[in-house]
Amino acid sequence: MKETRDKARELMKGYCRVCRVCDGKACAGEVPGMGGLGTAASFKNNVTALAWVRLNMRLLHGVTAPDTSVSLLGLDLSMPVLAAPIGGVSFNMGGGVSEEDYIEAVVSGCRNAGVIGCTGDGVPPVIHESGFGAITACEGYGIPFIKPWEGGELDEKLEKARATGCTVFGMDVDAAGLITLRQMGRPVSPKTPAELEAIIARVHGWGGKFILKGIMTPDEAMLAARVGADAIVVSNHGGRVLDHTPGTAEVLPEVAAAVRGRLTVLVDGGVRDGADVLKMLALGADAVMIGRPVSVAAVGGLQEAVEQYLATIKAQLIQAMILTGTPDMASVSSRILFNG
Amino acid sequence: MKETRDKARELMKGYCRVCRVCDGKACAGEVPGMGGLGTAASFKNNVTALAWVRLNMRLLHGVTAPDTSVSLLGLDLSMPVLAAPIGGVSFNMGGGVSEEDYIEAVVSGCRNAGVIGCTGDGVPPVIHESGFGAITACEGYGIPFIKPWEGGELDEKLEKARATGCTVFGMDVDAAGLITLRQMGRPVSPKTPAELEAIIARVHGWGGKFILKGIMTPDEAMLAARVGADAIVVSNHGGRVLDHTPGTAEVLPEVAAAVRGRLTVLVDGGVRDGADVLKMLALGADAVMIGRPVSVAAVGGLQEAVEQYLATIKAQLIQAMILTGTPDMASVSSRILFNG
Amino acid sequence: MKETRDKARELMKGYCRVCRVCDGKACAGEVPGMGGLGTAASFKNNVTALAWVRLNMRLLHGVTAPDTSVSLLGLDLSMPVLAAPIGGVSFNMGGGVSEEDYIEAVVSGCRNAGVIGCTGDGVPPVIHESGFGAITACEGYGIPFIKPWEGGELDEKLEKARATGCTVFGMDVDAAGLITLRQMGRPVSPKTPAELEAIIARVHGWGGKFILKGIMTPDEAMLAARVGADAIVVSNHGGRVLDHTPGTAEVLPEVAAAVRGRLTVLVDGGVRDGADVLKMLALGADAVMIGRPVSVAAVGGLQEAVEQYLATIKAQLIQAMILTGTPDMASVSSRILFNG
Amino acid sequence: MKETRDKARELMKGYCRVCRVCDGKACAGEVPGMGGLGTAASFKNNVTALAWVRLNMRLLHGVTAPDTSVSLLGLDLSMPVLAAPIGGVSFNMGGGVSEEDYIEAVVSGCRNAGVIGCTGDGVPPVIHESGFGAITACEGYGIPFIKPWEGGELDEKLEKARATGCTVFGMDVDAAGLITLRQMGRPVSPKTPAELEAIIARVHGWGGKFILKGIMTPDEAMLAARVGADAIVVSNHGGRVLDHTPGTAEVLPEVAAAVRGRLTVLVDGGVRDGADVLKMLALGADAVMIGRPVSVAAVGGLQEAVEQYLATIKAQLIQAMILTGTPDMASVSSRILFNG
Repeated sequence: MKETRDKARELMKGYCRVCRVCDGKACAGEVPGMGGLGTAASFKNNVTALAWVRLNMRLLHGVTAPDTSVSLLGLDLSMPVLAAPIGGVSFNMGGGVSEEDYIEAVVSGCRNAGVIGCTGDGVPPVIHESGFGAITACEGYGIPFIKPWEGGELDEKLEKARATGCTVFGMDVDAAGLITLRQMGRPVSPKTPAELEAIIARVHGWGGKFILKGIMTPDEAMLAARVGADAIVVSNHGGRVLDHTPGTAEVLPEVAAAVRGRLTVLVDGGVRDGADVLKMLALGADAVMIGRPVSVAAVGGLQEAVEQYLATIKAQLIQAMILTGTPDMASVSSRILFNG
Repeated sequence: MKETRDKARELMKGYCRVCRVCDGKACAGEVPGMGGLGTAASFKNNVTALAWVRLNMRLLHGVTAPDTSVSLLGLDLSMPVLAAPIGGVSFNMGGGVSEEDYIEAVVSGCRNAGVIGCTGDGVPPVIHESGFGAITACEGYGIPFIKPWEGGELDEKLEKARATGCTVFGMDVDAAGLITLRQMGRPVSPKTPAELEAIIARVHGWGGKFILKGIMTPDEAMLAARVGADAIVVSNHGGRVLDHTPGTAEVLPEVAAAVRGRLTVLVDGGVRDGADVLKMLALGADAVMIGRPVSVAAVGGLQEAVEQYLATIKAQLIQAMILTGTPDMASVSSRILFNG
Repeated sequence: MKETRDKARELMKGYCRVCRVCDGKACAGEVPGMGGLGTAASFKNNVTALAWVRLNMRLLHGVTAPDTSVSLLGLDLSMPVLAAPIGGVSFNMGGGVSEEDYIEAVVSGCRNAGVIGCTGDGVPPVIHESGFGAITACEGYGIPFIKPWEGGELDEKLEKARATGCTVFGMDVDAAGLITLRQMGRPVSPKTPAELEAIIARVHGWGGKFILKGIMTPDEAMLAARVGADAIVVSNHGGRVLDHTPGTAEVLPEVAAAVRGRLTVLVDGGVRDGADVLKMLALGADAVMIGRPVSVAAVGGLQEAVEQYLATIKAQLIQAMILTGTPDMASVSSRILFNG
Repeated sequence: MKETRDKARELMKGYCRVCRVCDGKACAGEVPGMGGLGTAASFKNNVTALAWVRLNMRLLHGVTAPDTSVSLLGLDLSMPVLAAPIGGVSFNMGGGVSEEDYIEAVVSGCRNAGVIGCTGDGVPPVIHESGFGAITACEGYGIPFIKPWEGGELDEKLEKARATGCTVFGMDVDAAGLITLRQMGRPVSPKTPAELEAIIARVHGWGGKFILKGIMTPDEAMLAARVGADAIVVSNHGGRVLDHTPGTAEVLPEVAAAVRGRLTVLVDGGVRDGADVLKMLALGADAVMIGRPVSVAAVGGLQEAVEQYLATIKAQLIQAMILTGTPDMASVSSRILFNG
C-alpha cells in the first residue's frame, strides 16, 4: 500500500495530503477538495466518535476462521463493506486520473473483492456518465447514486441508471443544500415524504431496491421506512455539506434502534480499518460505506490498489473478529463493545 | 474574501493574525489588540462552547427556500445578525484605516446587507464621535453603544447619541472593570438597578429602546428585565475584561429561559459562520452579534468586504436552515440540536 | 513586568523557561529545577483544575471599589496572598542571584505589598539561614517553614525560627518522601498525630501559630484540626514530590468543607493571576500561596519586581471582584462560580 | 539512566525513539517495531487510562520505611513487578544486541533485583530458545511464556519450557490473531475452555503454576478461574494485536473484582514508574508487568541497566507508598485513589 499512497500523494497534491491518519484536520475547509466544510467539525467528529468506540478483546473461545460474508439488498458480499459514492476527480482529487479510469477502478475493484461500489453524480455530466458506464461494463454490478435534483433531471437520471442493469439505486439526499449547484441553475433540494414515496415506488416498480443516504436522526429513519426505502445510509456526507454535525457513530445506535428489522442500515464516516467496520456493526449497522480511503487507493493505483485496500480491510476485519470472538456477522452485538 | 483577509493580515500585523479559525489561541493576552485577556480562557471558551453544540441534519422535508428575516426592537432585519460594537482601530487593530472609515464601513455595510451595525465608545473621543457620525450619515440606522461611565459623561453621551436619529441605544456594562480607564481619570463601573432604571426611563422617554450588554447569569437577566431593558446581550465582552468566564453558548440556554418573552435576547462570542448563528438561536437567542470577523472584514476591505462577509454568513445560514429543515426563524428550536 | 521576565529567563536558563503560561509542560521532570516530578502530572493538574473553575460575570450592582484585605493568623494582609516557601536558588533556579538576595527580595517585597512571605528550608543550610535572616531583618514579619526532619534537627530549627521574632511557624510535611535527603543522611518523614501534637503544643506555648502544609484529603484536614494546627495548606508541593496527584483546586472544596470554621485554609498550586486568587477563595480557601511566579519575579528583579508582581495580582483581583460583584473577601462564595 | 537511554536510542534507531514519555504516539503503527498496531489507540489508551488514575497524598502517619515485598505464585518478590515477555530483538528493537544477550539481561537483571523476568516466544526459534536458555542459566528462575500455537507445537514447547526448571508457565493467548504467523504456516489461535483445561491440567500435573495472559473482560477472567489458571494478566498485548481496545487500567477494577481471591491478577500496559505500580495495585492487581521500558533498559545497558531501572522503580514505589501512607502491599486499597 505504501507505493499506492505515495503515488496518490503526488497526484492529489493540493487536494489531499494522504495523511497517515485520515482525520480531516489538515484539509479543513477544502471543499472542493477532499476536506470537510468550514472548520471540518463534522468530518472530524466522524473520526473522533468512532475512535471513542472501543472493543472488548476476548480470546477464550474457538473462533479461528470467522465468516465475514453478508447478504443485503439482494447482494451477497464477501464482507459488509461498500465503496461510497464519490465523484469529481478533477476538482476534488486533482485530476491525476480521468473520471472514467477512477470510477472503473472503484467499481471493478470492489466487484473483484466481492463487495460493491457506488457511483456519484454532479456537475459536469462526466461524473454520472462515467459511473453509469462503469456499472454497465460490470454488467449492472454497482449502485448508482443520484443527487436530489429538482424537477425532471432526477427522473431522467433514474432512467439512465436503470439502463446500466443495476438492481439497487441510491439517492444522497444529504447533498441537498449545495447552494453552488442552485447558483449554477441546477438546484438540488431536500425531498418531502410524498416526493420520496413517488420516487421509491417507481424504482420498486422496476423491481429495484432503493437506498436513501443522509439520515442522521431516528425520526427521519422512521420516515424513510414509512416511504418505502429499502436501506438508509447514516451519513453527514463526509462533513462536506454542513459544519457542526455529530459524528455518525454517535447517532448510529439510536437511528438503528428506531428502524431495526424494517430496513437495512448502512453508515459511513471515518471508517478506516477492519476494526472500524466491526465497531460500526456493533453499533447497529448492517454494513459500512468507505469513502476517502477508497478514493486515495483508486487515484494512487487504480483497480489493483482498490483490491489491495479492500484485502487489507478484510484481513483486519478477520483479525478483529478473532480477537473479539465473533464467528460471523450475524453474531455481532454490543457485547463486543467496551461498556456496550 | 481571501483578498480581504490577506489585506487585513497585512494592515493588522502585530494586532491580529487573521487566523484560519479565529479562536483566541494565537493572540492570547493581547489586550489592547484583538485578543482575550490573560490566558484568553474566556475568548477560547466562547469558541469551544459553541463548537460543542451540534446540529441535527434533516433532509426529508420541503424546506428549500428558508426565510432568514427577523423583526426585533422595532427593526426589520434580513437575518438575525448585528455587528458588535467595537472601536479603537488605532490601538486594537493597527490603525491601517481611520476610525471614521472603519466604523462607516461597518454601519453602511450592515445597512446594505439588511442588518444593523453597533458603534463603540472609549478613549480617545474619536471612537464615539466617528460612530455617531456614521450613524448620522445613515440617517440614524445604527445602534450607538455607550460605556458605563460614572457621572455626567454617560448622560452627555446619551444626548449626543440621541442626536444621531437612532431609535435603539446600548450600553456595554461588561466594559466596567477596565481599570485602565479609571486610572486615566475616566472611570467606568457596574451599574446598580436604580441607576439602570433611571437611564432606561430616560431613553424610553425619548421613545427609544435600550440594550444592556454583558449579562452572563439568569439572575442578572431577570434584573435587566425588571429595570426595563428591552434587550440584553449575553456577552463576556469577547473575553477582554475577565479571564476564566464560561463561554456564552454555555450560559445562554439558562439565561434565555429566565427571561423568555419578557425581553429580546442577543448573544455574542465565537459566532463565525451561518451555522453558528443558527445554533445560537436554537440555544435561545433572538439574534447574534458578530465582533472580530466583521472588524477584520472592515479593515481588510471596508464597506464592500463587510457586505461580502455578511452575504457569506447569510448563504451559510440558508444552507444550515435547509439542512436542518428550518423554514424560518420562528421555527428554530432545540429540536435541531443533537441531544437538544 | 516584561523586563523582569526577560531578565529571569536569562538568569534561570536551564532551570526555568519563564513560559508565557507557567503550566508545567515544558519543564516536566526537571527536579531539581522548577518543574514537576516525573511526568509533572501533579503540577499540570494544578493548572488544569484551576482553569476549569470559571467565574460568573455580574455587572448590575454597586461594587466599584472592593476591599481586598483579610485578617488571618493574627496578620492583617492587603489581600489574601502569601508567597510560598521556596528555596534552593542555586540548584532550582540557576543561581543567578544569591540565596540571601533572593529570599530578602521575597520577604521584603511581600511586606511592602502588605502581604507576607514564607521562607524555605533544606540542604545546604544557607537556605534556612537566609530565610531566617530575612525574617529577622523584617522584624519577624515572615513565616519560616521547616521541613519535617526526623529527630533533633526539627526542634533545633524551630528554636532558631523562633529567634527571628516571627509569630507564625510552618511545616511543609509534603516534603516528606524526598528520599534524596534520606540518602544524604538528613531524613525527612511523615509525622504521626502524636508527633504533630507535640510540635504544635510547643509552638503554641511560645504564643505562636502553626501552619501545616501538604493536606490533600478531608480526613487529614480533620486530623490537622484535631492535633491543633491553626492553618493547613492544601498543597501537593507544586507537584514536586509525587507524580499523579489531583490538582489542588479539585480537592479544595471537600477539604475546606471538612474543617470550615475550625482552622484557616490556605491553598497553593497553579495560582497565576488575581482571578485565580478569587476562584480559590470561592472554592473554600481563606487565602492562597503563590510559588513559582514570585520566584521568577524575585530572580528577575528582586524586591521591586516582587512588589510589581503583587501589585499586578492585586489590580487583577480588584477587577475580578468588580466583575463578579464581590465587595470584600467575606462576601466570596460559590455563587460567583459557574455551576457553583 | 540517561546513558542507558542514549545508547538505546542509538541502537534502536528506526525501531524506538526512546521518547521522554513512552506513550505510543511517535511510533503509532510500527509493528514490527515497538509501536502499537494501526492508530495505536490501544497502546495510547493504556497510558491515558493510567494517567487518569490519581493518588491521594497523605502525610499525617508513621509510614517511613514501607515494605514493598509480595509473595505470589510461590515466588517471593522484592516488589510486585515482573518483566513482561517480549522477544524478537532483531525485528522489534533493531538488533543492536543479540536475542541471547537481551533476554539474559532481562532474566538475570530481574533476579538480581529480587523480581522475576518472563521470556517470549515466536518466529524465529531463537526467541524461545534464548529465553529458555536464560531461565536455565538462572536455575529455573524465570517464567517462560509460550504463544497459543495450534497443534503439537504448543505441547512440545511446554515440555522444553519444563526442562528449564521453572515453576511457573505462561501463555499469551492475546497473541492469537497474528495472522502473519498463520500465513507463515505457524498458526496461533484463541483457545477454548476445554483446550485450556487440558493445558493447565498438564502443567499442574508437573507441580507448575499457569498464567493466562490477555484477559480484558470479567467474563473471561471468571472463565480463566474455572479452567484452573493460577493467574491472569489483564493485557491488550501492549496494543499490538487489536487497535481500539480500552486501556488496561480502565478494565482492571471490574476484571479484578470478578475473580478476587480466586486467582492472582497481574496487569500490564503503560506502567512507567513506581507510582504507576501502586496505582495498578489500588485498582485491583496483585502485581504488574512492565514491558517496553525494561526492553529499552536491556538494549541500552544489558543486565546492569535492567537492575538500575528496577532500582529506580523501587525507589519511586517506596516514595509513593510513604506519600500515600501505605505501609505494605497488603494495605493497598482504593482509599489511596482520588475519588476511589
